[in-house]
Amino acid sequence: MNSSNTAPVKKLLAVLDGERFDRPPVWIMRQAGRYLPEYREVRTKAKNFIEFCYSPDLATEVTLQPIRRFGFDAAILFSDILVVPDALGLPVHFVENEGPKLQPLDPARNFSELHGEVDLDRLGPVFEAIRRIKSSLPKETTFLGFCGAPWTVASYMIAGKGTPELAPSRVLAYRNPLYVQQLIDRLVDASIAYLNKQAEAGVDAIQIFESFAGALTGLDIGKFSIDPIARIIKGVRKTYPNMKFIVFGRGSGGNHTRYAQETGANAVGLDWAVDPKWAAKTVQPLLPVQGNLDPLAVVAGGESLDRHTDAILEAFSGGGHIFNFGHGIVPETPIENVERVLKRIRG
Amino acid sequence: MNSSNTAPVKKLLAVLDGERFDRPPVWIMRQAGRYLPEYREVRTKAKNFIEFCYSPDLATEVTLQPIRRFGFDAAILFSDILVVPDALGLPVHFVENEGPKLQPLDPARNFSELHGEVDLDRLGPVFEAIRRIKSSLPKETTFLGFCGAPWTVASYMIAGKGTPELAPSRVLAYRNPLYVQQLIDRLVDASIAYLNKQAEAGVDAIQIFESFAGALTGLDIGKFSIDPIARIIKGVRKTYPNMKFIVFGRGSGGNHTRYAQETGANAVGLDWAVDPKWAAKTVQPLLPVQGNLDPLAVVAGGESLDRHTDAILEAFSGGGHIFNFGHGIVPETPIENVERVLKRIRG
Repeated sequence: MNSSNTAPVKKLLAVLDGERFDRPPVWIMRQAGRYLPEYREVRTKAKNFIEFCYSPDLATEVTLQPIRRFGFDAAILFSDILVVPDALGLPVHFVENEGPKLQPLDPARNFSELHGEVDLDRLGPVFEAIRRIKSSLPKETTFLGFCGAPWTVASYMIAGKGTPELAPSRVLAYRNPLYVQQLIDRLVDASIAYLNKQAEAGVDAIQIFESFAGALTGLDIGKFSIDPIARIIKGVRKTYPNMKFIVFGRGSGGNHTRYAQETGANAVGLDWAVDPKWAAKTVQPLLPVQGNLDPLAVVAGGESLDRHTDAILEAFSGGGHIFNFGHGIVPETPIENVERVLKRIRG
Repeated sequence: MNSSNTAPVKKLLAVLDGERFDRPPVWIMRQAGRYLPEYREVRTKAKNFIEFCYSPDLATEVTLQPIRRFGFDAAILFSDILVVPDALGLPVHFVENEGPKLQPLDPARNFSELHGEVDLDRLGPVFEAIRRIKSSLPKETTFLGFCGAPWTVASYMIAGKGTPELAPSRVLAYRNPLYVQQLIDRLVDASIAYLNKQAEAGVDAIQIFESFAGALTGLDIGKFSIDPIARIIKGVRKTYPNMKFIVFGRGSGGNHTRYAQETGANAVGLDWAVDPKWAAKTVQPLLPVQGNLDPLAVVAGGESLDRHTDAILEAFSGGGHIFNFGHGIVPETPIENVERVLKRIRG
């Protein structure tokens, strides 16, 4: 018997490798977040959100908090998808109750606002946090790095802020598709460099967040979302051939099957609007799925929460499944409701 | 040769009856809207939006305007989905730049805010507008009535306003599913009564708008969206057995196939996030489809608009298709871009 046989199993990583469990591994998007009193306390120690992301001490602490409290099967690096534009030369500010603000790119400037390459030194504190988290995590906990997908990140750089239906990016993608393509190409390169350093620092697997898949016209989803994600995954695997990826295309509807088949992902994240019975028939035969409890079901709690949790467990019981919410946990979620879900999943 | 053989063909109605055309019929959601200067002029004659909806003169005029200007294959009644809650006893006010406001329902009051039945007298001006429009429309123009689907209308009644992700309705649907089901049942009855009167006044076919399908958890889409729509369609067909229906479930992703198979619809509307190539393989074999050009492609114009228009025409060329946008036309749309799309479609 060699040592690998006695090492604790990283259940989530095993699912990405094709294993199935009667009780699926579980983590929650935004599990290091404001619903936790211990998070809110640490949050007061940074003077703004971007400084919080760039503090190895604080980022390490809040990444570990939900693991200590709930024993999730995965820890996800505490950071933000907008550190990439920040390290490309577009400073990001987070305005309380308004979200992130950037100086919007001006297509007439032909990318003179941006560095030629992503500034990995600027991102040094992120890699330092990864090393510290790595050394503190239980051996059975899968450690997830992440980045935003190029279309989602580009949308912030074009609009200078979050916009519900991405009108500025969509109009620009029609008016000046070449410029948007070039921006996406830059973000593909930056993401590969960034994720390679995350891998070097010690993450076990990576989630790519295409939070705005549902705002992209179905006709352009290949060009602006699926193909760039595929290039990132292929790019990282040049250096880290065994790196595993979860691709979460929020609101991508029928295109979840394309994310499964065309990106090189090892699992596909499903948002809460996806019917698990539909996904069990169409997506799960292709790849393990992750999801997809409505975060507001967890705000509501009670028997309704149990029924929805059970329905997801039941629908996905025939294949690879990582239990998660269908979007990030919201600040007003009662902690006892999180405990209730976990008990239901773990039995 | 009898007279019906020489009557002009209502192309859109023919598609709903299973016919196919090399050049699909076309209309545009919100075609009577602020992008038209003649609409903006008429709009100034009503002191608020709800009065506008209840003025047979003004509603008739703006319904006919886009038919005169563009010769669309369908006219859609100018009105608003919220006249139903208004006629159920929840007055609706439209606040400039903020949208509709209602007094939110209080579950503790057990529907005492609402009339037992929809007040069809209150809606009399709508039916009067239908009669006037009917008598003025070209014989080849299909005349569409409409209503909001119960989940979408209920969401406004619960929140008292539009909300991007329907948090109040979703939480209530988990906390008090019985109350939400009872509200939906009331809206099913009200919608049947309302649509029967629209049919009596002369509409040729009806579109049901489930604008918020994408905000409903996939697990509840059957109970709260598909089943109520099916009951409305069945209910109207008790009196009007040949009435045709288009069901538009915006953001419903993989569930477009369920709207096609389980509601009794004659066509399914597709939003702009749907990949036409995917829908041509999965939805169109079941029913004719309607859609799905991104309204912002029409804002942008140019060759990109041509390419996206062509791609939709091409993808849906093998089956029943009604050309439309994938959401309502927006006020900033240049009229010459609408003309450009129409020329492309009509050849």
